[in-house]
Amino acid sequence: MRIVLDAMGSDAFPEPEVEAALQAHQLYGDQIILVGDIAILKPRLEALAGSNPPVQLVHAGDMITMQDKGMQMVLKARRDSSQTSMAVGIDLIKKGQADAFVTAGNTGGAMATAYYRLGVLEGVERPALSGIFPVKDGHCVVLDIGANPDCKPEHLAQFAVMGSIYAQKVLGVVTPRVGLISNGEEEGKGNQLVKETIPLIKASPVNFIGGIEGKELFGGEADVAVTDGFTGNVLLKSSEAVAKLITDVLRKELKSSLITMVGAALSRPAFAKIKKMLDPAEIGAAPLLGVNGLVFIGHGRSDARAILNAVRTTRQAVNAGLLEAIRQAIQSQLTLIPSQ
Amino acid sequence: MRIVLDAMGSDAFPEPEVEAALQAHQLYGDQIILVGDIAILKPRLEALAGSNPPVQLVHAGDMITMQDKGMQMVLKARRDSSQTSMAVGIDLIKKGQADAFVTAGNTGGAMATAYYRLGVLEGVERPALSGIFPVKDGHCVVLDIGANPDCKPEHLAQFAVMGSIYAQKVLGVVTPRVGLISNGEEEGKGNQLVKETIPLIKASPVNFIGGIEGKELFGGEADVAVTDGFTGNVLLKSSEAVAKLITDVLRKELKSSLITMVGAALSRPAFAKIKKMLDPAEIGAAPLLGVNGLVFIGHGRSDARAILNAVRTTRQAVNAGLLEAIRQAIQSQLTLIPSQ
Repeated sequence: MRIVLDAMGSDAFPEPEVEAALQAHQLYGDQIILVGDIAILKPRLEALAGSNPPVQLVHAGDMITMQDKGMQMVLKARRDSSQTSMAVGIDLIKKGQADAFVTAGNTGGAMATAYYRLGVLEGVERPALSGIFPVKDGHCVVLDIGANPDCKPEHLAQFAVMGSIYAQKVLGVVTPRVGLISNGEEEGKGNQLVKETIPLIKASPVNFIGGIEGKELFGGEADVAVTDGFTGNVLLKSSEAVAKLITDVLRKELKSSLITMVGAALSRPAFAKIKKMLDPAEIGAAPLLGVNGLVFIGHGRSDARAILNAVRTTRQAVNAGLLEAIRQAIQSQLTLIPSQ
Repeated sequence: MRIVLDAMGSDAFPEPEVEAALQAHQLYGDQIILVGDIAILKPRLEALAGSNPPVQLVHAGDMITMQDKGMQMVLKARRDSSQTSMAVGIDLIKKGQADAFVTAGNTGGAMATAYYRLGVLEGVERPALSGIFPVKDGHCVVLDIGANPDCKPEHLAQFAVMGSIYAQKVLGVVTPRVGLISNGEEEGKGNQLVKETIPLIKASPVNFIGGIEGKELFGGEADVAVTDGFTGNVLLKSSEAVAKLITDVLRKELKSSLITMVGAALSRPAFAKIKKMLDPAEIGAAPLLGVNGLVFIGHGRSDARAILNAVRTTRQAVNAGLLEAIRQAIQSQLTLIPSQ
């Protein structure tokens, strides 16, 4: 397996990437291709792994930073001559020289670079950024979490198919339960978008369980939760913020007296479990589904462990044949419902 | 002060309502008017408070249940002849025989009854259900949380004004910071609705701080958070569900060994603080802003304490002259921007 890792992605680049690349090669035996400024990368890599490191370097003299946005970012993403680490890295998978691309860089930049350089799978209207949320006793694939702030019913119906394939192939759920995020479970609830989406998902080849709310989502009653990129993003950010609020208040209160400090020390294993459950580094990266290639996007704050986990998540998708499976699912849906 | 309390609202009606009515009278000296089936209410009230109870009873032979929906609910809400406790109670405030109405009943039923019987304040396009969210070091008024799943920019701009008045008058914030929930704080972020709403809020007489995400909302950086009723409802339900997931996992893990159980016992004061912070019963009820009367809607699961808190929240709004303040704010906005 050949995985391209953007060496210029994380906030602390390239240390986490270089370290994770070496660990991933050692753990999995995969060929890891680090893309970035070779003048920066080579000495770091050699310092860690000697003069003949087991990780391949590909030079990219430019990069998309967290400050890039608007037209400037689009140009960096789109231009044939672009030499950003994302453009060079994604071109490698486009040319078939690698199987997947992983970055912890600017999410908008990664989405734009993937979209313009790889294009979408035939029949896909919009790619969707997919978050793997921790829920009761497992995970739920939530999509879209930010690629498309405004969506049409047809987009959401495709997200249902792509999310279902992801849950099946990568998370190993035999018959994924697909829910549509709504303001109530009952039929008749929902905004206009939800109401128009329901018949389309019902007509598609997924195991649709209807409208779901937070309690079903976080209660582990769905394997896939479909929504527009605006709502999904609000859901993601709010969930993270509520978790942070609770853990911050708890931490502060536990430090407020000697007795509670002793209590906290004894309770440490329970807190460790919560911390692990809520840690985005456990999954490491979110797949951009629907583009013509495997692209995984991690958090800017990723450390080496997070990036190693991102590589692990990515290689599971490669091993599972995710791209081909989504291609076929979209194709067969197009065949089934030619009017769409 | 005269407060009408729907005696048939909560899941466990009428016990919590009867108990809370007596407590509220005793605590605040207010005149509490319990509306519901007198054959049920009278014996309960007399059992608790003797043959001459300090709480007034008004008979209503019908009720809106949690099962009522669709056209049936609309008819119960709208008909002149309706004898539901909500219709009879809201008619009392309409006729000026009381200052505010509180219910822990069917939220949709309460909104519909208030909307049809009271109408909206002059110039208000849509009433908004407003949640008072616990955030870092305080509260944030989030609206709409479910009255209007589909909104126009003009609706959101009015929610900003009404929410700001609520924060000022009832929560005592001198210059409320008003944020618009978005998928990023930067200008240019947002779905179409957000982008079209921003200039309208900027032109309105509120202290607009721009787009906000979960971290600003729950980090206590806004006093008012404006959004459409679909997104607001998803936000509300998801936040509750994340909080429940975390506390459930923590509870389970703390019970998993003797040591963590001891730790949990010692840490109890910290957990109590979290529990209190997250408890919807602390506020008790959400105001329906924009209708021509003060209407507060509590959770179906309310117990007597929650309903007492709902009465306390409601009387704060009455004392603050909330209805008149919103009427004037909307009026002056209409004068300022006559094209709207």
